[in-house]
Amino acid sequence: MHKLEGISASEGISIAKAYKIGEPDLSFKDVIVNDKESEINRLHDALNASIDDLNQIKDNIVENLGENEGMVFQSHVEMLSDPEFISSIEQLILDKGMCAEKALDVTTNNFIHLFKSNVTNVWMKAQIRERTSDVIDIKRRVLSHLLGVKLPDLSLVDRPVIIVAKDITPSDIAQLNGKYVKGIVAEFGAQTSHSSIMARTLKLPMILRAKGAVKEIRNDDELIVDGLSGTIIVKPTRLQIMEYHERIKAFHIELKKLAQFQKQLTTTADQRHLRIEANIGNDRDLKALDSSAEGIGLYRTEFLFMGRDHVPSEEEQFESYRKAVFYMRGKPVVFRTLDIGNDKQVHGINLPPEENPALGERGIRVSLDHDKMFRTQLRALIRASSYGDISIIFPMITTIDEYRKACSIYDEERATMIKDGQNVGNVSLGIMIETPAAALIADQFAREVDVVSVGTNDLIQYVMASDRMDGNVADLYQPLNPAVIRLLKFVVDAFHTEGKDVAICGEMAASHMAIPLLIGMGIDEFSMSNESILKTRQFISHIDSKYAKKVLDDVIDNAATVSDVIAKLNHFLDKI
Amino acid sequence: MHKLEGISASEGISIAKAYKIGEPDLSFKDVIVNDKESEINRLHDALNASIDDLNQIKDNIVENLGENEGMVFQSHVEMLSDPEFISSIEQLILDKGMCAEKALDVTTNNFIHLFKSNVTNVWMKAQIRERTSDVIDIKRRVLSHLLGVKLPDLSLVDRPVIIVAKDITPSDIAQLNGKYVKGIVAEFGAQTSHSSIMARTLKLPMILRAKGAVKEIRNDDELIVDGLSGTIIVKPTRLQIMEYHERIKAFHIELKKLAQFQKQLTTTADQRHLRIEANIGNDRDLKALDSSAEGIGLYRTEFLFMGRDHVPSEEEQFESYRKAVFYMRGKPVVFRTLDIGNDKQVHGINLPPEENPALGERGIRVSLDHDKMFRTQLRALIRASSYGDISIIFPMITTIDEYRKACSIYDEERATMIKDGQNVGNVSLGIMIETPAAALIADQFAREVDVVSVGTNDLIQYVMASDRMDGNVADLYQPLNPAVIRLLKFVVDAFHTEGKDVAICGEMAASHMAIPLLIGMGIDEFSMSNESILKTRQFISHIDSKYAKKVLDDVIDNAATVSDVIAKLNHFLDKI
Repeated sequence: MHKLEGISASEGISIAKAYKIGEPDLSFKDVIVNDKESEINRLHDALNASIDDLNQIKDNIVENLGENEGMVFQSHVEMLSDPEFISSIEQLILDKGMCAEKALDVTTNNFIHLFKSNVTNVWMKAQIRERTSDVIDIKRRVLSHLLGVKLPDLSLVDRPVIIVAKDITPSDIAQLNGKYVKGIVAEFGAQTSHSSIMARTLKLPMILRAKGAVKEIRNDDELIVDGLSGTIIVKPTRLQIMEYHERIKAFHIELKKLAQFQKQLTTTADQRHLRIEANIGNDRDLKALDSSAEGIGLYRTEFLFMGRDHVPSEEEQFESYRKAVFYMRGKPVVFRTLDIGNDKQVHGINLPPEENPALGERGIRVSLDHDKMFRTQLRALIRASSYGDISIIFPMITTIDEYRKACSIYDEERATMIKDGQNVGNVSLGIMIETPAAALIADQFAREVDVVSVGTNDLIQYVMASDRMDGNVADLYQPLNPAVIRLLKFVVDAFHTEGKDVAICGEMAASHMAIPLLIGMGIDEFSMSNESILKTRQFISHIDSKYAKKVLDDVIDNAATVSDVIAKLNHFLDKI
Repeated sequence: MHKLEGISASEGISIAKAYKIGEPDLSFKDVIVNDKESEINRLHDALNASIDDLNQIKDNIVENLGENEGMVFQSHVEMLSDPEFISSIEQLILDKGMCAEKALDVTTNNFIHLFKSNVTNVWMKAQIRERTSDVIDIKRRVLSHLLGVKLPDLSLVDRPVIIVAKDITPSDIAQLNGKYVKGIVAEFGAQTSHSSIMARTLKLPMILRAKGAVKEIRNDDELIVDGLSGTIIVKPTRLQIMEYHERIKAFHIELKKLAQFQKQLTTTADQRHLRIEANIGNDRDLKALDSSAEGIGLYRTEFLFMGRDHVPSEEEQFESYRKAVFYMRGKPVVFRTLDIGNDKQVHGINLPPEENPALGERGIRVSLDHDKMFRTQLRALIRASSYGDISIIFPMITTIDEYRKACSIYDEERATMIKDGQNVGNVSLGIMIETPAAALIADQFAREVDVVSVGTNDLIQYVMASDRMDGNVADLYQPLNPAVIRLLKFVVDAFHTEGKDVAICGEMAASHMAIPLLIGMGIDEFSMSNESILKTRQFISHIDSKYAKKVLDDVIDNAATVSDVIAKLNHFLDKI
């Protein structure tokens, strides 16, 4: 018996024998070709065969997993049909006499290099990692056709197995036989990749970045894959197998229990009602929402602006906003206006280079400096308001002057639209509280603002003066620091004094350590990713809000450090 | 009559006729020389003649202005004697056959370019501007000797005049006849340059960056130079001249009044005693201190580390620290440990490149990550403690854990030194409060910390989430925002509850708008540049602390914006 550790990309526990997908031998001889024309024909044959494969995979996927998952392969087909991509390969064959294999290899490597060289921040790195794995997937497929080598085909699996591989591509997962494949272990990959999303949809336990897996696991080794902890046990003892069978049972009981929370309201143990809403960024997130969210607590409109070559028109924006409002059938939708700057950039809006972008042009500061763009977005939102219950909140508000200025621009646009006879509904206006300045005068804001959402991710980095993307100060980015807790409580008290609800978003809203304190403060609404909603609702059902308030008061009065806070929380959590 | 505007680099008002220093014609023919040896001899003759000039100027200066001012010309002599500098010029003559003029020109330009290319931040830019103007000064002198052209000699002035020039070099000022020169106007220059420091020492009104001055002012034009506002009036009306004669009288009366505060204690109108101490960074600042400071409130030790090619040894540091303690003869000295990162870098301590350095490795974070360097500094400080009353404060403290860790390292070093039989005095330990996190748990810090100084420059930028060096968000860097005022009051109350004094440093400590609010809070000590001390002491003598407290309370309870705060302050200031 020995253990391997990785990161969990899809939950669940499985026990089965290892089935290693060997890397197919896609090595080739780097030869100079003379008959360039027939080499180009070889290339096109391989491209066409690959496209046929992908279309077939796509059809399978759409049938088994749904339209959305099929999109991945649609985009692979588009990459293979891209004229720029094809002509790059052809050019290398024509100009340098490269063989098709080499020309393909060079071109795909160039594309990957190009992606990477454009990456300047952590957020983009995750995107690039996904994209890179897609390029590698299509390259393998074309190479296999050029070389006449068969790629591993997981549809051939005919007994219960756990797949073990260097890397797992979307097409591997697309072809796997769901009846027999019980789990996946890979040495590379990212939690946000297409493969990971597909594994979660299939409810297949998957562990990535399990170092040494391919070397240390042999075919037919018995494996336990614990997708809850990220642990792989190779050749477990009988005792371990018995123990894990119990855990599997317990996990399924948990899943059933969790499912009960699907259509329930969010309620504490002492019957206080709260709301849990969803953070979304685009249509795909919208479609992934199940019925558990009690609204959209944070629609991040900047995702509509990113990854395209122009600023979306009023019409394009309106369509997306209307769709979300419509989809929620009367449940509230809170739109945050464009929040770019710091690590988020979009085409068409140039931000100045800055020494400290996190302390520079971002959020509402950008919108107030780009009047036309801001008015276009507000008009699109005002138009969407006639379809349901919407709020608009402004990000990175620092002063009341900024809020007043944003509101007066909103009022102007709305008045013009009414004058022009357009349909407009009622809109509540408000702010994100993400700067210490806004938090410290929350009582003043509470008099003027209808809707408030505390954005903890940024607020914490300013309070702690520690960039949350900067590994050098990671230990100082402390959501549970008493300073953060005190400031949050001050905000909640200020708005409650004015009889107004407070929402919270950011990682903290779904953290089991933070939630008891947030409930103790009386936070009214928690906004989080769809995946976290049920677990959070379940967790909250165990919390007595009066007792949570006592813990909070103790933290506010007596805690000096994070360890103090955690000690008090553990005492509380032990009793749940 | 017309007006020009510039920035004031030295206070005072003068009325006199313009005396333009024409740029001497230092143009030269760029010829190829064949007799390289005699060209090198020409160069050395010019260098030697220049050094003779500079030594004479230096002697004059030392006699008239003192040892410190002479140092500037000592450094010019050193630059001209620098083997690297000389051999660069010789090399260009030998290798490329350049004439000495061209070779000098190319070499000095390369040096300036080299300075500039190493500049990555605003703080360094100011230093470089000073340094650049020194290089231009020596280049002009050497060129003048090569070409046989006479440089303007201000010692020849024989009637009351105001000097008007493109640029004013330290050697221009060094030679001027203090009996006749009444003021200086230049189109370039910086407030922190050597020329500016010399003008202030000579109490000569000086206005820099007066755009168009050379073109729009003719020789013998009557001028009023108002070094209080930065205004130049060309050919004033008789009424204006009369008015300014009154202003000059008033200014001298003010100066006399100010001088009375030299040896007084700092006291409010209602006889509350406060302290005003000085911020210093090096020996030069130390020597510039007059007797008005009631101590050194902030010794910025990082200036000992900057502009040199190695980290100073324990011995070097000890010498500087001891000197300051000794110089203050029993008055308190507060040393801040190394505060680098963000815009301050030193040789020998490599900081990681960061997306947002202001939210990254800086202050105590750097010291805790560089144990050996930190211990060396603490040992040097502990040794200095046997010579007087010293405190050590740690910069950029964010958590109590950091403070405890720094203290335990201090305790270890002190214990070792005592065991080794070294002399150690008593040291008070404390923190800078510069992060919102430290401010928000000031009550917890107040229990453990002896000395506290609130560093408003950084605190404001974190509270407002606005980089104070970033012009794009300059309007959001608001010292008078109610959020800032509230947070400061919370800190003061917390320490007073524990019976401990609170000091404040940063621009805010010397701001006449902020001081009434700071006195209202009960800040005990103001630390500022030596130049601001007397004026601040005078200003404070007019303030009734009880009334100031009422204004503060009104701001805390009712102000929502900076305009609200200013309105309340103006009401108060009108009555002083």
